[in-house]
Amino acid sequence: MKYVRFSENASVSYGLVEGDEVIKLTGSIFASYEKTDKRYAIHQVQLLAPLQPGKIVAIGLNYKKHAEEVNKPLPEEPMMFLVAPSAVIGPDERILLAQPEHRNEHEGELAIVIGKRAKDVSAEEALDYVLGYTCCNDVSDRILQKKDGQFTRAKSFETYKPLGPAIVTDVNPDDLPIRVRVNGEVRQDSNTSDMIFPTAELISFVSKVMTLEPGDIIITGTPSGVSPMYAGDVVEVEIEGIGTLKNVVANKP
Amino acid sequence: MKYVRFSENASVSYGLVEGDEVIKLTGSIFASYEKTDKRYAIHQVQLLAPLQPGKIVAIGLNYKKHAEEVNKPLPEEPMMFLVAPSAVIGPDERILLAQPEHRNEHEGELAIVIGKRAKDVSAEEALDYVLGYTCCNDVSDRILQKKDGQFTRAKSFETYKPLGPAIVTDVNPDDLPIRVRVNGEVRQDSNTSDMIFPTAELISFVSKVMTLEPGDIIITGTPSGVSPMYAGDVVEVEIEGIGTLKNVVANKP
Repeated sequence: MKYVRFSENASVSYGLVEGDEVIKLTGSIFASYEKTDKRYAIHQVQLLAPLQPGKIVAIGLNYKKHAEEVNKPLPEEPMMFLVAPSAVIGPDERILLAQPEHRNEHEGELAIVIGKRAKDVSAEEALDYVLGYTCCNDVSDRILQKKDGQFTRAKSFETYKPLGPAIVTDVNPDDLPIRVRVNGEVRQDSNTSDMIFPTAELISFVSKVMTLEPGDIIITGTPSGVSPMYAGDVVEVEIEGIGTLKNVVANKP
Repeated sequence: MKYVRFSENASVSYGLVEGDEVIKLTGSIFASYEKTDKRYAIHQVQLLAPLQPGKIVAIGLNYKKHAEEVNKPLPEEPMMFLVAPSAVIGPDERILLAQPEHRNEHEGELAIVIGKRAKDVSAEEALDYVLGYTCCNDVSDRILQKKDGQFTRAKSFETYKPLGPAIVTDVNPDDLPIRVRVNGEVRQDSNTSDMIFPTAELISFVSKVMTLEPGDIIITGTPSGVSPMYAGDVVEVEIEGIGTLKNVVANKP
C-alpha cells in the first residue's frame, strides 16, 4: 500500500495511491479508514507531509561508510536524540534557512513510521509495529550542532524536516537504494543495507527507552556524502520503492 | 490558581485546589473548564502528574553556581534538547532505575507549563503564553549521558520525569526558593533567581526554534548539589509557592 496526505478545498485527507490516481480515504491510516468514491490524478492534488508526527526520534551515525568518512569508530549501540515535530514540511514546500550564513546540510534518510504503540519490543517482533516507510531530509545547521553539542536545535528549525512523498508499507527497509541529488547532481548514493543497526534493531532499542506511539517516526541516520545547501538549490531525497521527496531551498524572509 | 490532576474510579479529572480541598473540574485547563459541585479533601485523592506533556524541552546548565561547580564557562545562549514525554510520572509514584548500577542523579527543576501556542515570541510577551509552573525531577543516568553525548536517552527512561504536585499560576518564576532533599537531607538549595537565562528569555529562545503547544513544558535546568539516588531513597523537590514533589526510588523489576 502507498498512502499520501493531501489538501483539497482547505480540508486535509489521507489518500491511497493506485497507479497515477489517489483514492480519497475517510478516517485515519493509523486507526481505521474507508475508501471513498473520490479519485484524483496524483499530479492534480497538493501533497502534504504524509503524516504530522508526534515524536521524531533521530539516530546518529548509522551508516558504515559515513562513519569511516568522518573517521569515527562504529558505535556499539544506536545514538538517539529527539527533534521538534514543528519542523516538518511536505513535498515541494520550501526549506527556509534560518541562518543562511551557517553551513546547512542535507541528510537523506529512511523514516520509519510507527503504526502501533511499541514499548519494550524485541527486534524479532519490531516490524509488526511499523505502518510503513517514507523519505526524510534531516536538514542540519552544522555551526549550531557543534556549538550546542546537543543536536536538537540545529535540526529543529521550522521547515528543517521535509517528509514524503508517501508512506509505503510493502518494502524491505533493509535493502533500499537511497540517493540525494542537489540540482540534479548526486551527492549521497547508498543503500539502507549499509546501516550499522537495521530497522528492527533500531525500533527495539528505542522502544526499550521510550514508548513509541502511532504516528511517531524514527529517522534512521544518513549515508556519506552530506553537503551544504544554498538558496535556490533543488534537493531531492529518493528512496527506491518509496519515491522522491523534492524541496527547494530559500533563505528565511 | 492551583491546578491538579487526579484519578477517581478509573477516570481522570483536573481539579482546582482551594485550601485543603480539590474542586473537580469538567473540561481542560488548557482550553475551558467549569467547576463541578464535587469537592474532595486533597489527601483523599490520588494525584497524577498535573499534565501529560506533548513535548518536554530541557535546558542544560542554567544556574550560575552550578556552572561554577562543574567548572564550565557561563553559556552565551541557552542549550536545549528534548526528552520523551513517556518518562512522566506523578507525585508519589516510584522512580524505577533502569540501570541501578549506573550513577543516577536527581535534578530538581522549575517546569514552565505552556498554555497557548507560542511561535517566535519576544521575551517581553513570553509570560503571556504560560499557564503556570510546577516541579520536576529531571532524573539522569550519568553513564549514558556521557556515553551518548546526546542527553535524550539518559533522561528519557520510563519514570525518569516526575512532575507535580500542582500547576500554580500566580508566582514570580524568577524568584522561587528551590530545594531537593534525599531522605530528609538537603542536597540542592537555591533560588530560581540564580538562573542564567530567566523564564521569559527561555520561552522566547525556544519559541524561535520550535513551536510550543499548550501542554508542552520547558524544564529550566538544575542548581548545584546533584547527587546519586539509590533504591529506597525518598526524593523531594520543593519549590516554595508551588509545593513538594515526593517520589521513592526503586530498581526496575
